[in-house]
Amino acid sequence: MAMQERAVRTRRMFLEAAAEVFNEYGYDAASISVILERAKLTRGALYFHFTSKEALAQGVLDEAVTTQGFTPQTYKVQEWIDLALLLAYRLPREPLLSASIRLSIDPKARALFSTRWPDWIQLSLDLLVAAKERGELQPHADPATIARLFVGAWTGVQLVSSSLPQEQDLVGEVSELFALVLPGMAVPGVLAKLDISPHRPERLLNQSSAGQDPLHTP
Amino acid sequence: MAMQERAVRTRRMFLEAAAEVFNEYGYDAASISVILERAKLTRGALYFHFTSKEALAQGVLDEAVTTQGFTPQTYKVQEWIDLALLLAYRLPREPLLSASIRLSIDPKARALFSTRWPDWIQLSLDLLVAAKERGELQPHADPATIARLFVGAWTGVQLVSSSLPQEQDLVGEVSELFALVLPGMAVPGVLAKLDISPHRPERLLNQSSAGQDPLHTP
Repeated sequence: MAMQERAVRTRRMFLEAAAEVFNEYGYDAASISVILERAKLTRGALYFHFTSKEALAQGVLDEAVTTQGFTPQTYKVQEWIDLALLLAYRLPREPLLSASIRLSIDPKARALFSTRWPDWIQLSLDLLVAAKERGELQPHADPATIARLFVGAWTGVQLVSSSLPQEQDLVGEVSELFALVLPGMAVPGVLAKLDISPHRPERLLNQSSAGQDPLHTP
Repeated sequence: MAMQERAVRTRRMFLEAAAEVFNEYGYDAASISVILERAKLTRGALYFHFTSKEALAQGVLDEAVTTQGFTPQTYKVQEWIDLALLLAYRLPREPLLSASIRLSIDPKARALFSTRWPDWIQLSLDLLVAAKERGELQPHADPATIARLFVGAWTGVQLVSSSLPQEQDLVGEVSELFALVLPGMAVPGVLAKLDISPHRPERLLNQSSAGQDPLHTP
């Protein structure tokens, strides 16, 4: 068991080192030797877990759809908001997440590995379909269209805002994006109850790591 | 004069060939010889206009902020919509435009040339500030935030939708994006008058090339 735990930890260290190197150099220019140097582990240990750079990239992408901090809420549309706010909060803090976006955006890596966007769209779609069934969305709001557009909008806001001379805080940007799109999709009674505060994701993560149920905290 | 015209046309042919090659290979892997082959012109002619691959990329980016088809409208917010719809219509048809996005997204090329996103944001901002002054926007709608977020959202919607297994029509996607964001920013009286139809940009381009004033056509 202890050995298995150690193996899981070693695997994770390689993925994180690879993610950092992909972020800095891009997929093409990233080399196994730089990843090894970064991970401070042996080549033998690497090949035990990953047989190639391709396998490392695939491993990074496999970790990229994550719902840490996500907890059930009264409104399904709030859960959809939480998903996007949590990712915005975690992205600048977790090289694995930013590397997965970088791999998705890179046309060459994308052709090799495809992207996780369809998974994010599906996750959003499930929540928005449930929200619609519960009457939280306006009659004309189409869950499939909104799920697809929002994954695109989120990605582009991240991309453009990180490239501007005055870099914007991503959680703040995504929060403003919700302020812009929610009035066109949520029914007024629900709209008034939604929390899109940039402070929300940090709170959610603290609550979930403390094992509390956010539905029963003030 | 005829010689000058020919020079302009030759320069344009090189830019279009370079754009195609950047689109297909990416900036890094694009080579001058492939660009020459594509342009079917001589190396001497190329070096008369562009001294390097860098200069070609810069030339492509210089052409990327374009308002062809744009005509004055009753509402400034309609002009802002038109800008985005026109670009969505032209992008899949003009390699220069898609190449400029590809260069902006590529971290390496971006570090060399920066992007045209700040210019698009400024163009949008000017229109949205005018819209706000004329009372077309809701009191809480902040032109700077919306201009910045929308350039990001537009870019990401293009990026994600073009990568999905069932590729979506970009004009249709941008039109749906407006349906989502306009209720959160335009005043109701103006909202009802705005045209976000996916057929609009083609109509605008035909009108502007025919020299008609779209304000006076049915």
